[in-house]
Amino acid sequence: MERLLGKQDAKGPEQRLHELAPVRVAIEAVSPEINGGRFPAKAVVGGSLQVEADIFCDGHDKIDAAVLYRVVGDKEWNEAPLRFHDNDRWRGEFPIERQAPHEFTIIAWRDLFATWRDEVRRKIEAGQQVASEIKEGAHLIGQAAAGERAKDAGEADGLAELAEQLGAADDEATRLALLRSDRAAALYSRGGPRTSLTRYATTLPVWVDRPKAAFSAWYEIMPRSQSDDPERHGTFDDVIARLPYIRDLGFDVLYLPPIHPIGRVNRKGRNNSLHAGEGDPGSPYAIGSEEGGHDAIHPELGGFDGFARLVDAAAQHGLEIALDFAIQCAPDHPWIKEHPEWFDWRPDGTIKFAENPPKKYEDIVNVHFYRGALPSLWYALRDIVLFWAEHRVRIFRVDNPHTKPLPFWEWMIAEVHARYPDVIFLSEAFTRPKMMKRLAKVGFTQSYTYFTWRDTKQELTEYLTELTRTEARHYYRPNFFVNTPDINPYFLQHSGRPGFRIRLVLAATLAGNYGVYNGFELCEAAAVPGKEEYLNSEKYEIRAWDWDRPGNIREDVALVNRLRRGNPALHDFTNLEFYNAWNDHILVYGRRAADLSSFVLIAVNLDPHNVQGADFEVPLWEFGRPDDASIGVEDLITGDRFTWRGKVQNVELDPQVRPYAIWRLIAEEGVP
Amino acid sequence: MERLLGKQDAKGPEQRLHELAPVRVAIEAVSPEINGGRFPAKAVVGGSLQVEADIFCDGHDKIDAAVLYRVVGDKEWNEAPLRFHDNDRWRGEFPIERQAPHEFTIIAWRDLFATWRDEVRRKIEAGQQVASEIKEGAHLIGQAAAGERAKDAGEADGLAELAEQLGAADDEATRLALLRSDRAAALYSRGGPRTSLTRYATTLPVWVDRPKAAFSAWYEIMPRSQSDDPERHGTFDDVIARLPYIRDLGFDVLYLPPIHPIGRVNRKGRNNSLHAGEGDPGSPYAIGSEEGGHDAIHPELGGFDGFARLVDAAAQHGLEIALDFAIQCAPDHPWIKEHPEWFDWRPDGTIKFAENPPKKYEDIVNVHFYRGALPSLWYALRDIVLFWAEHRVRIFRVDNPHTKPLPFWEWMIAEVHARYPDVIFLSEAFTRPKMMKRLAKVGFTQSYTYFTWRDTKQELTEYLTELTRTEARHYYRPNFFVNTPDINPYFLQHSGRPGFRIRLVLAATLAGNYGVYNGFELCEAAAVPGKEEYLNSEKYEIRAWDWDRPGNIREDVALVNRLRRGNPALHDFTNLEFYNAWNDHILVYGRRAADLSSFVLIAVNLDPHNVQGADFEVPLWEFGRPDDASIGVEDLITGDRFTWRGKVQNVELDPQVRPYAIWRLIAEEGVP
Repeated sequence: MERLLGKQDAKGPEQRLHELAPVRVAIEAVSPEINGGRFPAKAVVGGSLQVEADIFCDGHDKIDAAVLYRVVGDKEWNEAPLRFHDNDRWRGEFPIERQAPHEFTIIAWRDLFATWRDEVRRKIEAGQQVASEIKEGAHLIGQAAAGERAKDAGEADGLAELAEQLGAADDEATRLALLRSDRAAALYSRGGPRTSLTRYATTLPVWVDRPKAAFSAWYEIMPRSQSDDPERHGTFDDVIARLPYIRDLGFDVLYLPPIHPIGRVNRKGRNNSLHAGEGDPGSPYAIGSEEGGHDAIHPELGGFDGFARLVDAAAQHGLEIALDFAIQCAPDHPWIKEHPEWFDWRPDGTIKFAENPPKKYEDIVNVHFYRGALPSLWYALRDIVLFWAEHRVRIFRVDNPHTKPLPFWEWMIAEVHARYPDVIFLSEAFTRPKMMKRLAKVGFTQSYTYFTWRDTKQELTEYLTELTRTEARHYYRPNFFVNTPDINPYFLQHSGRPGFRIRLVLAATLAGNYGVYNGFELCEAAAVPGKEEYLNSEKYEIRAWDWDRPGNIREDVALVNRLRRGNPALHDFTNLEFYNAWNDHILVYGRRAADLSSFVLIAVNLDPHNVQGADFEVPLWEFGRPDDASIGVEDLITGDRFTWRGKVQNVELDPQVRPYAIWRLIAEEGVP
Repeated sequence: MERLLGKQDAKGPEQRLHELAPVRVAIEAVSPEINGGRFPAKAVVGGSLQVEADIFCDGHDKIDAAVLYRVVGDKEWNEAPLRFHDNDRWRGEFPIERQAPHEFTIIAWRDLFATWRDEVRRKIEAGQQVASEIKEGAHLIGQAAAGERAKDAGEADGLAELAEQLGAADDEATRLALLRSDRAAALYSRGGPRTSLTRYATTLPVWVDRPKAAFSAWYEIMPRSQSDDPERHGTFDDVIARLPYIRDLGFDVLYLPPIHPIGRVNRKGRNNSLHAGEGDPGSPYAIGSEEGGHDAIHPELGGFDGFARLVDAAAQHGLEIALDFAIQCAPDHPWIKEHPEWFDWRPDGTIKFAENPPKKYEDIVNVHFYRGALPSLWYALRDIVLFWAEHRVRIFRVDNPHTKPLPFWEWMIAEVHARYPDVIFLSEAFTRPKMMKRLAKVGFTQSYTYFTWRDTKQELTEYLTELTRTEARHYYRPNFFVNTPDINPYFLQHSGRPGFRIRLVLAATLAGNYGVYNGFELCEAAAVPGKEEYLNSEKYEIRAWDWDRPGNIREDVALVNRLRRGNPALHDFTNLEFYNAWNDHILVYGRRAADLSSFVLIAVNLDPHNVQGADFEVPLWEFGRPDDASIGVEDLITGDRFTWRGKVQNVELDPQVRPYAIWRLIAEEGVP
């Protein structure tokens, strides 16, 4: 919608006319515009925001357009050009130089001098006289020289000089040449009036995060399992001892499930059994006991000093700690006594356990967010996040946000961001697609996805197309987890080591953010029979892992994380492009920097059991080269360099050797 | 966007919390919503408006939703239910009972009793105890009985009675049966509280037209060519004499190009020659001479009395007169002297003729709409339309609206509609698609289309899918002209009589509105060589037609117009569905009333030169029948009735015999 939003109301025709008349250029279908501007698009500092709009005007006049942008609160607008693309669609971009909320809108105008140039060119080409047109052109320059915009833009002198030269010129040919010169066009463009200047009615918000919001590699561990001894509860210091290993794998986020005291009432036993045995540690998601709740640390992990040591040590290893934010409470969480008004009670006076009939979860109770819980619970929960932010945690993985009210998240995340704009919230919602997207709209920085269950070429192509080609790309940042403590994917249960390598490469190179839960690099796949759950899950017991287990894929993990870091094309997931490969098991895709300075091409054999080969298309056209041209290639795994001649190449991938290939295409090399 | 549009501004956290918290249900992607509600969707009185929205809420609770609607200005809202469709999409409709602007919005809420019923069902199916749930259910009923909404809805007594019965019941089984009864569900649905009631933030406008806006058949003639004598200028009385012919063809709109005095300066001669010969009448689009301008009638047509006679006589023949509204002026139009400020002048003081370099149109000059023309010209043009409306013209075909400012149309059409809400404006814009659509958004009732150049199965399928399946369906009402005085389509130039029959049936049955320019029914195709223009065009000379010319297709025209009128399925173009036919020359499509009471199936051979046959799919599935079922069919051309057995049938269409078939599928007949 353009500036005027008036409806056909009781206003007089004259008032209505004078409201409508100035809005002569149509500006619509602006992108990114999320829910009419209700929610911000997302960007990262150091990047830029691509902007598009349909822009057109009556008649045949030339128009021009720009995007206005600024940091929210700044007085002045900055301007970046929009360029005509196709079918009345205009495109441009503006840089994001500060990590602060931005806003933008679109302006467009009729360019009388460009119209003049175009008409004169067509008349001259048809051999028509243009004496009258020359006078008109000189008049336009004279007007521009005297105009407000010439002064504001510092072009008044240049335009006046041109006008003077036009007046002094002896003959029509000289005047025509002056008027048709690039100099005249540039002067008018910079300093000429913007006729029929129209501004889009809505100012659209942009939320700006730090780069890690869009590009991060997560490693998830249960701290209590880091002692390498199943009989001894791990501590933060045990985690510190593990940091070199995790750094060497190349991760940059170390994510810990809840570290709070675990409830004793109705505690779950091993393998999710209803009754805990002697010494069973319980699920860390059953939060709270007489030892404290969400702002306490499980005593056996070590106290706040230990936690501070861990945060420091992690930073020294290039790792940032991410904590879990899980709102449910164990039945012995202190809040239940302190704030009975936050919980649901049955008619017999007992508390209502969490349930999804007929399933019951008797080791946890849910809060409700309204009635007596509004607003006190909202403040309390916000303060929990602020509490951990004060303990230098800036990344939160949020458990099951889709079962808590959307307005709570919108409010709480804004509250935290007002104080800590660098906080990253990862939404752990595996639910209906529109709810998952809405959580991203209301503020979640990153989101879990269905990647975990997308195995085939068609599934991956369709899902990634939805994520990278629809409006969701502007607000929904996928975090591709290959596994989680809750998800031992069927594919991995039956794929052997090749399957783990396949899924690793897909996750790490299809998305900007990805994550693994420890054990993945060891190809751990033992499952509760018939279920996507890990056998002897760490959720219910302390495990010890053999980090050097034979057949591990630590080298692959370190490799892909190194390549991710070193190739800028892999830093923005929206640049993904799939290419033809004539085998349904071979997925070929590319990621490119806009200026082609970084171009990574990846081929993955999706079949973990068989050698697969395929002819595939090298996107020479993206380098503006014909199908028979050649291009320089670096094998990013071996470092070898060679040349591909022609658009169609062949790849054969043996899952037992290496089910993937990663190449860099080199723009400067191999031109035919 | 839901109710709250607040941005993250300086408001305190508490204020923000209390703004956000009540908006618990997400309502988004509402349809129809044109440019965020900036423009109205369109409907016709006697019809209904289909409404859709994505609606969802946190957690697993059941929700319900409704559309609120009213005539603009009414105090009370009416309510119609929305039903869950799929993937969080909800659908419903509301009736349009008055020809007046409407507005609507969406509400949604959590239905606690429906949630209760669902959970209890699942627990009972799992054999769990529900004693506590029965108490909770009774509590919900008691609450509902005492609630505001029960009183407002007149359900307080019913709910109180149910609550009493629950209290009096002897045993759990009786109470459970009462609570799970349909009666309890209905009472709660009608009178129970609407928890977390959320309302969409925007109230969306709907423009309501009379039915002819969406369903009309136009016949275009040049009045001066109706004398049947090329030497005698036709009059309105000659047109009156032609009315029985036009009525018998079955049209309901008789459209006349401009009837105003024609300029003498630079008048065009026959076949668009630059200089008119003695007695050449000139183009009626070169409007205005010393005899008057847009509010005058060309003297040779007869005066206002004659025009009034024509309007009356047309009405008696079931025809409504449509006039042309063409804003350009001949160089001798009175306005040029009276209002030089409305026109563009060259540096030498001469007027600027219309041009699109290198083309020049020296018999017309264009007005401009700004500078000295704002607002006086806008008022003058509005008053021209009002002038003809006062002379009982309620349909205007508007010439080249895309070369005049969009704000002018938006203002002018609203001004006219404020006085004459029954006026229909047809946009004659053949330009870029987004401009054509925007003209429909700003107020044009009907629009010319690219149908005229869509001949093949793929072209027709793609174009009609765009018109009937995208957002455009809500505001863009196509009027499929098979030809115009300006367009003698190449297809018709080479197709012979079969081609005319093909294009007639396509236009008349693919769109609600369609039109023919006279001569089409006579299969006139003589062209200026190499151009899509008629030879000896009526635009520049008086013609006489042989209305009984051999090979005419008057019977086809009368037939399709009769079938259009008699089959309600053909009245709403958005119900179009294409069906499989295994021949690229055979197009099979259906139009159906929502309740299946009217179902027309059409097969057209798009090849005018050869017999074509095809197996095609009868859409038995739309009647809920299996592929091997049968269905009753009426051949609407012959009136024969028969039965098709099985989904796949065959049709063979000989263009020399009849290149189309039109059937009615009869829901009641032929069930297997």
